[in-house]
Amino acid sequence: MAENRERPPFQIGQQKVSRRGLLGAAAGLSAGALLASCSVLQRKEETPKLGATAEEIIKQRQLTPEDVTAALMTYVPSGKYDEFLMFSSTGHGGQVLVHGLPSMRLLKVIAVFSPEPWQGYGYGGYTNEVLEGGYFKGKPILWGDTHHPALSETNGEYDGEFLFINDKANGRIAVIDLRDFETKQIVKNPLLVNEHGGCFVTPNTEYVLEADQYSVPLGGVYAPITEYKEKYRGVLTFWKFDRQKGRIVPEESFAIETPPYWHDLADAGKGPSHGWAFWNSINTELAIPGLQEGRPAMEIATTQRDMDYLHVVNWKKAEELIAAGKYETINGFKVIRMDVAAKEGVLFLIPEPKSPHGVDVTPGGDYIVVAGKLDPHVTVYSFAKIQQAIQAGNWDTDEYGIPVLPFEQCVEAQVELGLGPLHTQFDDQGYAYTSLFLDSAVAKWSLGKPYREDGWKLVEKLPVQYNIGHLAAAEGDTAKPAGRFLVAHNKWSVDRYASLGPLLPQNAQLISIAPNQPMRVLYDSPIGIGEPHYAQIIKRERIKAWEIYPEVGWNPHTQSVDPNAVLKVGDERIERRGKTVEIWAVLLRSQIRPDLIEVEQGDEVIWHLTNIERAKDATHGFALGGYNINLSLEPGETQTIRFVADIPGTFPFYCTEFCSALHLEMMGYFLVKPT
Amino acid sequence: MAENRERPPFQIGQQKVSRRGLLGAAAGLSAGALLASCSVLQRKEETPKLGATAEEIIKQRQLTPEDVTAALMTYVPSGKYDEFLMFSSTGHGGQVLVHGLPSMRLLKVIAVFSPEPWQGYGYGGYTNEVLEGGYFKGKPILWGDTHHPALSETNGEYDGEFLFINDKANGRIAVIDLRDFETKQIVKNPLLVNEHGGCFVTPNTEYVLEADQYSVPLGGVYAPITEYKEKYRGVLTFWKFDRQKGRIVPEESFAIETPPYWHDLADAGKGPSHGWAFWNSINTELAIPGLQEGRPAMEIATTQRDMDYLHVVNWKKAEELIAAGKYETINGFKVIRMDVAAKEGVLFLIPEPKSPHGVDVTPGGDYIVVAGKLDPHVTVYSFAKIQQAIQAGNWDTDEYGIPVLPFEQCVEAQVELGLGPLHTQFDDQGYAYTSLFLDSAVAKWSLGKPYREDGWKLVEKLPVQYNIGHLAAAEGDTAKPAGRFLVAHNKWSVDRYASLGPLLPQNAQLISIAPNQPMRVLYDSPIGIGEPHYAQIIKRERIKAWEIYPEVGWNPHTQSVDPNAVLKVGDERIERRGKTVEIWAVLLRSQIRPDLIEVEQGDEVIWHLTNIERAKDATHGFALGGYNINLSLEPGETQTIRFVADIPGTFPFYCTEFCSALHLEMMGYFLVKPT
Ligand SMILES: [Cu+2]
Ligand SMILES: [Cu+2]
Repeated sequence: MAENRERPPFQIGQQKVSRRGLLGAAAGLSAGALLASCSVLQRKEETPKLGATAEEIIKQRQLTPEDVTAALMTYVPSGKYDEFLMFSSTGHGGQVLVHGLPSMRLLKVIAVFSPEPWQGYGYGGYTNEVLEGGYFKGKPILWGDTHHPALSETNGEYDGEFLFINDKANGRIAVIDLRDFETKQIVKNPLLVNEHGGCFVTPNTEYVLEADQYSVPLGGVYAPITEYKEKYRGVLTFWKFDRQKGRIVPEESFAIETPPYWHDLADAGKGPSHGWAFWNSINTELAIPGLQEGRPAMEIATTQRDMDYLHVVNWKKAEELIAAGKYETINGFKVIRMDVAAKEGVLFLIPEPKSPHGVDVTPGGDYIVVAGKLDPHVTVYSFAKIQQAIQAGNWDTDEYGIPVLPFEQCVEAQVELGLGPLHTQFDDQGYAYTSLFLDSAVAKWSLGKPYREDGWKLVEKLPVQYNIGHLAAAEGDTAKPAGRFLVAHNKWSVDRYASLGPLLPQNAQLISIAPNQPMRVLYDSPIGIGEPHYAQIIKRERIKAWEIYPEVGWNPHTQSVDPNAVLKVGDERIERRGKTVEIWAVLLRSQIRPDLIEVEQGDEVIWHLTNIERAKDATHGFALGGYNINLSLEPGETQTIRFVADIPGTFPFYCTEFCSALHLEMMGYFLVKPT
Repeated sequence: MAENRERPPFQIGQQKVSRRGLLGAAAGLSAGALLASCSVLQRKEETPKLGATAEEIIKQRQLTPEDVTAALMTYVPSGKYDEFLMFSSTGHGGQVLVHGLPSMRLLKVIAVFSPEPWQGYGYGGYTNEVLEGGYFKGKPILWGDTHHPALSETNGEYDGEFLFINDKANGRIAVIDLRDFETKQIVKNPLLVNEHGGCFVTPNTEYVLEADQYSVPLGGVYAPITEYKEKYRGVLTFWKFDRQKGRIVPEESFAIETPPYWHDLADAGKGPSHGWAFWNSINTELAIPGLQEGRPAMEIATTQRDMDYLHVVNWKKAEELIAAGKYETINGFKVIRMDVAAKEGVLFLIPEPKSPHGVDVTPGGDYIVVAGKLDPHVTVYSFAKIQQAIQAGNWDTDEYGIPVLPFEQCVEAQVELGLGPLHTQFDDQGYAYTSLFLDSAVAKWSLGKPYREDGWKLVEKLPVQYNIGHLAAAEGDTAKPAGRFLVAHNKWSVDRYASLGPLLPQNAQLISIAPNQPMRVLYDSPIGIGEPHYAQIIKRERIKAWEIYPEVGWNPHTQSVDPNAVLKVGDERIERRGKTVEIWAVLLRSQIRPDLIEVEQGDEVIWHLTNIERAKDATHGFALGGYNINLSLEPGETQTIRFVADIPGTFPFYCTEFCSALHLEMMGYFLVKPT
């Protein structure tokens, strides 16, 4: 503990500070030198008198035996790594959080739909273009309501390469590259406005699934609410993902039109059900708002029926229809109309108990678990039975002509768990875990064969604090769950934390699901930065992130060397062409070169900036006061900003990272001469 | 652990779900009912086999005895509260973080300079006006570089009422009200562009201190860099704070002009030095950039001199000058010119060893500690000696005519600590703690009399990982430090955490400074959401935040009931006046009333929204897809949004909080008919 074993590269080893030493470090020197001065420690030799032993601390802090074991199970010593990483949404925060497990420490916030200046996201540079990709009919939309992160998969297991996340409020999907943990793309779904049933990926990330929640006319155009039944529509979207490019390809994507039921969650089939996808739905009543017009409240009108519809989609078949040209193009997007989907065996419905909120495919791909939040059971559908029912062909249709398979023929089991069952995850022991919103509890229940001999039944319920929405088990929605840990994403925290005003954090609780032990809450983790909905938990070692960019001059948008990169000191320059001033700049400890730029008011400025550092963690920021510009340039990175120098004056620019002892001197002046 | 002791108010007690029960809950009912079903637990009775005892866990996880005690010292059990709260800046993240100590959990992010949609900050509503207060010459500036949070003080102690924070990049100060933890005001300093020496408060929060860093001509106007010495100026600002209004009052604030030295940090005098303030400075060389013109790099040019200048300001005297009209008004702001400040005994300089970075007044107000980052000592100035030197009157002046007091006459002690000393904090035992940037260590040293008998000397150094900038001890910059804990704000983390791409978190390390024990690192806390600079740590019980807003219809901007609040269901309404549609809406579980709004393209929409809930944690969001609008309405809150319905179409709006089992049904449609 008293040893300073590892030292970052820019530390200085001399006993006396010399300016030369500091400047040498600035230029990348460093090697020499571990500090002698560390041995100058003058530890007091008095024996500790207060709380220095475990027993004393336990007594002073009044820790229970359960507190002690929980502390020991979750503490991660300095320099040791967490075993798992949890990627969660932040709801209307619009971002993604990365926590370490078991410590539950927040390791990173990834900016996605909302600008975030620490990452330089949306404050100049290529990230502005990423955000512009998500504009809505030309209007800047600079937030999102993220719900369901989806890690890319290979053979139904997380491969640690990409992360997708949806924006419920504006109908968008974002792509995050897990080499640098940056958002690379936002696509706006041109058919819908509001969505919920995304992101979920097919087992090899062929497609990213997204569906509408609150139906609108296709394309979001205007239609009177009284024409809801005739003109409003649901949309099940299959976004094609190109792993080489690291981008969703809208031209190779397609959607399936449905009746205007509100789609909720989705899951992709795998194993025997590979090639299929499942969405549940609510408001199959086709209720519309209109309190002022005398209509009942939506919460009443949408919960009249005892059954809603599980949507069962054969996407392999849909691909064939697209290849055969059996689609229409609406707002530039390929759409299989619902009569075609029904006729061609692409879309089936199955009744599901009322107002379901979760649909989850078992690890083997053989069952689909639906939780009806107004029904105390989980309902387990057998994929084999669904296939038999389809083959049998004795179905009715809904009022739009979509086949409705008989409930009894498709169901394998129903398990009574408690009040408000929502979402289900799995472990490596053949158990399932379902969140119970109204009970504020997690239900553990056993899967029937081939998973376990004990059959489909409730095993145990663990109270959580409070009102759990989604839950996430370690790799618990993949083909090979990891077990051991589960996180309850509780929507309210109420009295769990010190009062910090009327807006309370949510409460993510780490739960042990170790085999042959009762479940137990190990740790309370406040989320005071958004409203996490779903999360996925991945083994840390599956992530193979870059420590620095592969080459100097790297453009993270193209993931290649930028033609405007400046690769070494001395190549920086300024060019003036009429009313355009173009600057090629280089950043290193502790200089931004060139450090003096003078332009005239009204000039267009194009400023290329390259961080030529190769040391891990040697990030430089670039802030230009008064111009709403801030970049984060990680080692090797190149970015370009463009703006019009419309405000005259004297504007300092500087590095926003505390990157060396002389970081305050890493600055320059941008002078705009009035015209 | 298995008992569900406390339940939030909207949980349902019935064994069977009834729609009536849910809707009753929606309307605020709830009382009845603790769940019988919780006793249905079916715990497996097998004895635990894996790591269920403390000894087993310690062995499996290979925890050292130090790890064990650190785990026990930092773990906060579910439902128990942290003892301290740490308010830290996020650097170019532009926000404020609130962590709990000793758990180091992130409890809340407070949006300040950057929009943040979870808090509804900058996405419609009154917070847009707060952000507009910080616009720069009419240009939206939607981020900041926060450095130094300052809690309001009474008699030199934190009073838990307000928090101030600066924006280095754009020269701004924000005011946060700790009743609701929301930013209420952003003021732009009209004299400067870039600043660093803020926020620091006087002992009764009479003033919030702010000073420029990179000098510009007063008001930030254009002047050639070659006229730096003649036309560029420093600015020491005293922002008047009105505690009743909870606002800074620019008209009652003033500034003191200085030579164009770069001001760094500040501290206010207290006790015997009450009425005085201190700023240190760098670049007293008056160096200017110009690499392309053949000038040396700023990191070299600004570090030529062996001494820079501590600025000593008599602000009580400055108040008298203002009252006497001895000021000029520049950009609407009162400025005491430097010749007047020099002549009237308001401004003095004292040499300080080279390129200092921290200035900190001791708890008793009797000494001023300066750390010269290129000098291995801390230099301790005696306030009494400074007063004697002023009285003696035998000073020289700098080249601008400002008195320079003799170094030797003002210094009490110099203590050699190590390489790169920066900032100093204090404990309750008479010790000081100084961060050593280049050593990557914390130095503990004893204060001389009246604090300790052992005299001014180094006691101990603790290595930290890596490159500590600021540090914060519990109430460690107040008149009564609390001791026990200190947090090292390390700028680099290098190898401390799992690799999540080239942008690494910073590393805040919790350090025990318990009396009569060696210092030790207890906990590593990654900060993956910004670059914290300074922090202040306050006893939790000093914060008296509201749990809900005081009355239904509360406007958090005016902190009073809003005239457009709707106080009960049934009073909601829509009014149309020509091209204006005004809506008075009410939110409750699970309805937004009215739920159907139809306007014509081009209409101006004024939408008042009131959350009439009175239950703690019953926050509702309000999102309007496609219009970049999201509010967070805490219990009792009223907000108003205004926009032009310029895009035709069908737009769902909904509550973005998971506020009840039927939260998905808390929605409506906003229809914009094309014209
Ligand atoms: Cu830098
Ligand atoms: Cu709500």
